[in-house]
Amino acid sequence: MSEILSSLRSLMASHSPPLDALVVPSEDYHQSEYVSARDKRREFVSGFTGSAGLALITKNEARLWTDGRYFLQAIQQLSDEWTLMRMGEDPLVEVWMSDNLSEGANIGVDPWCVSVDTANKWGKAFAKKSQNLIPTTTDLVDEVWKSRPPSEMNPVIVHPLEFAGRSVSDKLTDLRAKLKQESARGLVIAALDEVAWLYNIRGTDVAYCPVVHAFAIITTDSAFLYVDKKKVSNEMSEYFKGLGVEVKEYTHVISDVALLASKQLFSSFSSKIEDMEIDSDQTDRLWVDPASCCYALYSKLDADKVLLQPSPLSLPKALKVVNNEYSLQKNPVELEGLKKAHVRDGAAVVQYLVWLDNQMQELYGASGYFMEAEANKKKPTSETSKLTEVTVSDKLESLRAAKEHFRGLSFPTISSVGSNAAIIHYSPEPEACAEMDPDKIYLCDSGAQYLDGTTDITRTVHFGKPSAHEKDCYTAVLKGHVALGNARFPKGTNGYTLDILARAPLWKFGLDYRHGTGHGVGSYLFVHEGPHQVSFRPSARNVPLQATMTVTDEPGYYEDGNFGIRLENVLVVNDAETEFNFGDKGYLQFEHITWAPYQVKLIDLKQLTREEIDWLNTYHLKCKDILAPFLNQAEMEWLKKATEPLTALESFICCLILQFLNNLSHLFSCFVIHHSLHREADALDGCSVWVSVGLIEKT
Amino acid sequence: MSEILSSLRSLMASHSPPLDALVVPSEDYHQSEYVSARDKRREFVSGFTGSAGLALITKNEARLWTDGRYFLQAIQQLSDEWTLMRMGEDPLVEVWMSDNLSEGANIGVDPWCVSVDTANKWGKAFAKKSQNLIPTTTDLVDEVWKSRPPSEMNPVIVHPLEFAGRSVSDKLTDLRAKLKQESARGLVIAALDEVAWLYNIRGTDVAYCPVVHAFAIITTDSAFLYVDKKKVSNEMSEYFKGLGVEVKEYTHVISDVALLASKQLFSSFSSKIEDMEIDSDQTDRLWVDPASCCYALYSKLDADKVLLQPSPLSLPKALKVVNNEYSLQKNPVELEGLKKAHVRDGAAVVQYLVWLDNQMQELYGASGYFMEAEANKKKPTSETSKLTEVTVSDKLESLRAAKEHFRGLSFPTISSVGSNAAIIHYSPEPEACAEMDPDKIYLCDSGAQYLDGTTDITRTVHFGKPSAHEKDCYTAVLKGHVALGNARFPKGTNGYTLDILARAPLWKFGLDYRHGTGHGVGSYLFVHEGPHQVSFRPSARNVPLQATMTVTDEPGYYEDGNFGIRLENVLVVNDAETEFNFGDKGYLQFEHITWAPYQVKLIDLKQLTREEIDWLNTYHLKCKDILAPFLNQAEMEWLKKATEPLTALESFICCLILQFLNNLSHLFSCFVIHHSLHREADALDGCSVWVSVGLIEKT
Repeated sequence: MSEILSSLRSLMASHSPPLDALVVPSEDYHQSEYVSARDKRREFVSGFTGSAGLALITKNEARLWTDGRYFLQAIQQLSDEWTLMRMGEDPLVEVWMSDNLSEGANIGVDPWCVSVDTANKWGKAFAKKSQNLIPTTTDLVDEVWKSRPPSEMNPVIVHPLEFAGRSVSDKLTDLRAKLKQESARGLVIAALDEVAWLYNIRGTDVAYCPVVHAFAIITTDSAFLYVDKKKVSNEMSEYFKGLGVEVKEYTHVISDVALLASKQLFSSFSSKIEDMEIDSDQTDRLWVDPASCCYALYSKLDADKVLLQPSPLSLPKALKVVNNEYSLQKNPVELEGLKKAHVRDGAAVVQYLVWLDNQMQELYGASGYFMEAEANKKKPTSETSKLTEVTVSDKLESLRAAKEHFRGLSFPTISSVGSNAAIIHYSPEPEACAEMDPDKIYLCDSGAQYLDGTTDITRTVHFGKPSAHEKDCYTAVLKGHVALGNARFPKGTNGYTLDILARAPLWKFGLDYRHGTGHGVGSYLFVHEGPHQVSFRPSARNVPLQATMTVTDEPGYYEDGNFGIRLENVLVVNDAETEFNFGDKGYLQFEHITWAPYQVKLIDLKQLTREEIDWLNTYHLKCKDILAPFLNQAEMEWLKKATEPLTALESFICCLILQFLNNLSHLFSCFVIHHSLHREADALDGCSVWVSVGLIEKT
Repeated sequence: MSEILSSLRSLMASHSPPLDALVVPSEDYHQSEYVSARDKRREFVSGFTGSAGLALITKNEARLWTDGRYFLQAIQQLSDEWTLMRMGEDPLVEVWMSDNLSEGANIGVDPWCVSVDTANKWGKAFAKKSQNLIPTTTDLVDEVWKSRPPSEMNPVIVHPLEFAGRSVSDKLTDLRAKLKQESARGLVIAALDEVAWLYNIRGTDVAYCPVVHAFAIITTDSAFLYVDKKKVSNEMSEYFKGLGVEVKEYTHVISDVALLASKQLFSSFSSKIEDMEIDSDQTDRLWVDPASCCYALYSKLDADKVLLQPSPLSLPKALKVVNNEYSLQKNPVELEGLKKAHVRDGAAVVQYLVWLDNQMQELYGASGYFMEAEANKKKPTSETSKLTEVTVSDKLESLRAAKEHFRGLSFPTISSVGSNAAIIHYSPEPEACAEMDPDKIYLCDSGAQYLDGTTDITRTVHFGKPSAHEKDCYTAVLKGHVALGNARFPKGTNGYTLDILARAPLWKFGLDYRHGTGHGVGSYLFVHEGPHQVSFRPSARNVPLQATMTVTDEPGYYEDGNFGIRLENVLVVNDAETEFNFGDKGYLQFEHITWAPYQVKLIDLKQLTREEIDWLNTYHLKCKDILAPFLNQAEMEWLKKATEPLTALESFICCLILQFLNNLSHLFSCFVIHHSLHREADALDGCSVWVSVGLIEKT
């Protein structure tokens, strides 16, 4: 490790101009969150494997910024040479650089790996002390990285219309109408999911992300795709030709952007000569999304003629023109696909829980998913039958793989036992992961890519006897999860506003979690799809939630060294049919599309309100019905038990109670004020009851 | 009205340069929210009397911007010449001007009546079309306003230490330490409450606001007060002399600011010659709060040497240095005073409700505060005994006036019946107000100035038979009010984040309200005290809530033409003793300091959760105990009834129910899942009960 830093530092010294610091971001040339192995430059220099972070190397120091999901993991992975900078607690990277680097310092960065937004933000911060952001001519990390993996060479494939829901030519028509509306003559697309979505193509260049390393340029009469041509089969060439899309080499994008800027970029498919020159200055603009376009490409444009605003494809990868109105939404085919994918995925998760429940009882003497008791200390008889975080998650993957349209996982499964569950983005390694433990909480956050949709689900379970504290925490997390999922809110509300609904039940106890509460989910695309989110931090792109958007609902609680809890469903934003419509704003609500039971054993029922219990029962009922076609008899028996309504036989007993109260009615008017119920630890099928009743003397 | 506009338009035409538009803000020279009669320029030109708004007069148009609290009122008050611009729905004033006024247009404004922030914001918007913000040399409105009231001539008085809690010299010491910390050599204070707070003085220059029209300048070794000297008695002159504060004429502030900029401002009380010149450039800065300082004063400063940031006195009028840490807080004396003032004030409100309840029954045949029935159509026998919105609020004022330390109202009482209650900031006029009506909702939002604190409370009541819809709305408003008041949240949380807690129960039905949820309250100062607030709009000054801050909790619902509901208490932010302290952030919670019952008759109890009922009972119990010393026997009887716990005798019946359930225990384990109670409309002391019980067969 030390060698990497010293090599980098000598390259920094010999750079022209010499660099006082080098920033190594996590992002690739497309500003992706998840990057391919050969683009993991920040991981290579720092040793930290999390998906988000930024490394800064100065002459004497090495610092790594990352967010709350990764604090624990970063501490474990960083060597002594590195200082961890906690985002949200420590100064922002640009503030730190501005404050701590010398006057006039030169700070290098690979201009392909930094967005226009970020470069501009840093530039502003650096002005104070006349520091300079230096775009390096080559990526210094690549020079040091001798064993850098070779380029991926995976074929580009078509994403069929039956799943995409809208043809490329329709999408191009919509996009060009939008360009016209914004008086722009062209758009440079750098985000990988936007390129894939627009051209209805997919690939396997980045693990967990079904995309191709590619750029696109769209003008009013031409469309280009920049991709390693070796990835494009003859058949695919015909496909693009049929669409009027000109395929060019990946590396040509920079020269073509320069040509575009000087109006010299022509497509062989376009007969028309660009007639833009006769238009006014305003229509001379080129549209670039400052969040996804890298500084290297942007620097080829005339800054005065750039329209810097979110790409029309950055909203839920959908752009549809109806009566000249752009409704930014997932189309009905995408939504239907997502829902279907989530049903199959939920079935796999339930099958997994059933299997795990059996295994934990058989191999480890656990009391199981339903019973609450300490394990009887049984151990697997052989090393091979031992269950680890990795072997169980492999089982989950195999159950998913058996489902229709499965194409792989959507992110590395977070399969974590006990204290590992407190590491928010824990990624177990086969050789160094924990064994399953019937006396500890198990958290599993996982998802898959299906042709018809991307999934993401988290359930937290205990196969033995959870502590009262664990139940309290699970209950608070569940209350937040239900509160967010049940929210109704006027149009125009953004996720930042809703975030507190998921946190408030935890805050009551002085608890919280160091991550956002929700992110969009793609249609067989990225599992994290922006730009909307549900977060305690206002996002730079303050996008309100809109009907047909997907968003996860995943509050949690993490106790370092002990356990972690997270519950996650994917929600779809729908129009709400409210009784009133104050302000004619229109109201929205969520629809859960994820299906798997919550573990009732972990809920302290007396802390739930009637509304929460009602919701839980309704969800569980639907869960049972929806998953039934995918489960065998044993699995179905298990699911029935797991989703047993908490109000069974209520109407019968209600009559009995009322009868009893009537016996007192000559004396009092009675009313029940409080109730609480408590599933006893050692009496699974029994419940203790506490009822408070008020009465007022009859006058 | 037409004459005013035509006169203004000719002044605009003859101005040098000629003006294409004239902005007339609501604010005075101190950017106050509430202004004195002679400063109501916007009201004079437009006829709209609300506290917030902005008038824009162009050659052909007249437009008035105001916020949701005033939409209804503005429509009623504006003549046909005016167009109402709804803030939050229509474009911002600067956007509208930029879009609709011509290229290079000259837009005039009195530079004393516009803040630095606002002038800068407009300047930016105007740049697009090379429009110019022109500071007028005189106020054009004043020239047209022949009958403009004369200057107030009210004495400046001392606010005694027993109420202020901290001496002027201590405050000056703290302030100078803060100046040093920020490397500033002086501070210009324009906000009236900041001047009053710093010098421990009060006055009566502005109705409802115990302040003096004055500016202050503080440097490292001098302190100035700019005020009409005729307001300063000999005794007060001695007071200021004793503090080392030099009193100068109000009008001299602008020349003194210019002297301050050129380091030529010396105080006769300061022996020391300013030694700042030898300091570095950084300590050459002058501190100006861009939100309260007007553009006229700011323009006398060297922009490069101005520290533009919130005044150290703009946070809850408190600045205290402990171990070099500035804790921005109300001091213990102020807090204690506020609490005491609120108890006396609550007693006055209860006395008022008792009186009104009796009057409504006697004069109008109302069923009264407790009973639910239509009135028997009785009418007052004489015109003089008729109750109107104004006569009843006069009664309330007289009850308050009899309380210790009363100094006047803190804002015009909003006393509103039926549809008038839907006008959020309704202000009844004696000649044109509504008569009380036993069949309609009555909303009363009122407050007073006491020597020891400022109060603000809203209660909504019905003396007859409220509709189910009115109850639903009252219940939703109450649920929001309780949810916000019961919130616990980590330090660093701002009011924008909490706002949704008060709205969510309304949003469930598609309801909402067009105003913020909370504002700070002063210590015998302004009833609206910034900069923190609880609002659905993020505020420019994103100030987190901090311990010892006051904030109101006042959600509402307003149905145009029908009724309005608002419930308002003042809360104090306290440290929360949470069971845990995740992230070592420290958690905060609220303490209610307002005391008056909620009308149980208006609550649909079955919509409340156990936690909400618990809270209501606890609050009502405290209310009864705290107000007892201030009430006579009849009032106390009324209050006892109004605060009757909703869970009376619960423990007794609890035993009976359990006994009953035990009889079934050989068959089932039972549990109660649902309960609901419903106060019957015509059976005040009775309650119907609905109980849902679940049971699981014993195995």
